[in-house]
Amino acid sequence: MKKGISQATIDRLPLYFRTLQLAADEQLQIISSDELGRRLDITPEQIRKDLATFGQFGRKGIGYDVHELKENIGKILGLPNRWRLAIVGVGHLGGALANYVNFSSLGFSVVALLDKNKSLVGTRVNGLTVNDASKMKRVVAANEVDIGVITVPADEAQGVADALIAAGVKGIWNFAPTKLNVPSTIPLVNEDLSIGLSTLSYHMSQE
Amino acid sequence: MKKGISQATIDRLPLYFRTLQLAADEQLQIISSDELGRRLDITPEQIRKDLATFGQFGRKGIGYDVHELKENIGKILGLPNRWRLAIVGVGHLGGALANYVNFSSLGFSVVALLDKNKSLVGTRVNGLTVNDASKMKRVVAANEVDIGVITVPADEAQGVADALIAAGVKGIWNFAPTKLNVPSTIPLVNEDLSIGLSTLSYHMSQE
Repeated sequence: MKKGISQATIDRLPLYFRTLQLAADEQLQIISSDELGRRLDITPEQIRKDLATFGQFGRKGIGYDVHELKENIGKILGLPNRWRLAIVGVGHLGGALANYVNFSSLGFSVVALLDKNKSLVGTRVNGLTVNDASKMKRVVAANEVDIGVITVPADEAQGVADALIAAGVKGIWNFAPTKLNVPSTIPLVNEDLSIGLSTLSYHMSQE
Repeated sequence: MKKGISQATIDRLPLYFRTLQLAADEQLQIISSDELGRRLDITPEQIRKDLATFGQFGRKGIGYDVHELKENIGKILGLPNRWRLAIVGVGHLGGALANYVNFSSLGFSVVALLDKNKSLVGTRVNGLTVNDASKMKRVVAANEVDIGVITVPADEAQGVADALIAAGVKGIWNFAPTKLNVPSTIPLVNEDLSIGLSTLSYHMSQE
């Protein structure tokens, strides 16, 4: 895999993947960069440039093979790994994520839920029983969890991250509004909903 | 306001704002770009460059006045507008957003909830009564809604966006995994949780 791919390009790959998935559902065999661009509001030049970063897809004047391109982008994104997620913190956001349907279509599955709140332990959310967060190691091992999803309050997030990593997860998806310290071998993605909202506010304030 | 500010810079402004808010809570008067950088894992050079885009903040060798910089970034982001949000679609995600505590600290408030599901209409979520989505115009006007938040399924999202805009909202925050067509006068931000997760997958797949 080539190094030095920009974050912006990586961010667009899931958009390409999803659009190709929809095109495949429509039984489309071939798609042009123009049509991909129209569906995504991205210029065809940008799309051709992004895809060229990873190799030679598509044929000039014809377009991309929908199935082949989808499979290739999926591989680049590591989706065939079919990562297994555990959500720690089954509050409103954790519960919403447990129910978020798009994950399974991308090859992610939520396999475990944990919370330290004893009144939640044992209840069921979207078919999964909430486990006691103190049993982290056992739950992560038993469910072969790859990714830990942190949806606890900010002041509890570092402790949860440490426990998840000690239990053997390979990546962290953090929703708590705080900076986490993790070993450089553990990929970490911070999700911050206030960024989108602030960006909207910024654009609404421009005349 | 200057034109041509990169999206990446705009994306960092809420991070600066939140970090300054925490620093203000700690009674810190002055903060250096080094300290801001340490707290955010961003280089001090990047921070000085970002802030210089908007004007002359801070004094060389001393640092930034925490309160002043926070106020200024807040103004750039349009936060003093104290935008009023209506959430359309009170499922798991809509319910989670209605409860998302960070919004109020940034000056956003959720003032109305709407859903077309009659069994939800009249129920209360986080102190707000769910309104019938067919009463969009009246609810938006009565609550002086600025921003419409779309958390309905993809195939209903365009209809909801049209109704929100007809009812007079000034911006759209879309969580439905679909491309919306809105007039160029209406700022639109699409939120896509699968991007963060796919990015994590990508990094976990690199050796």
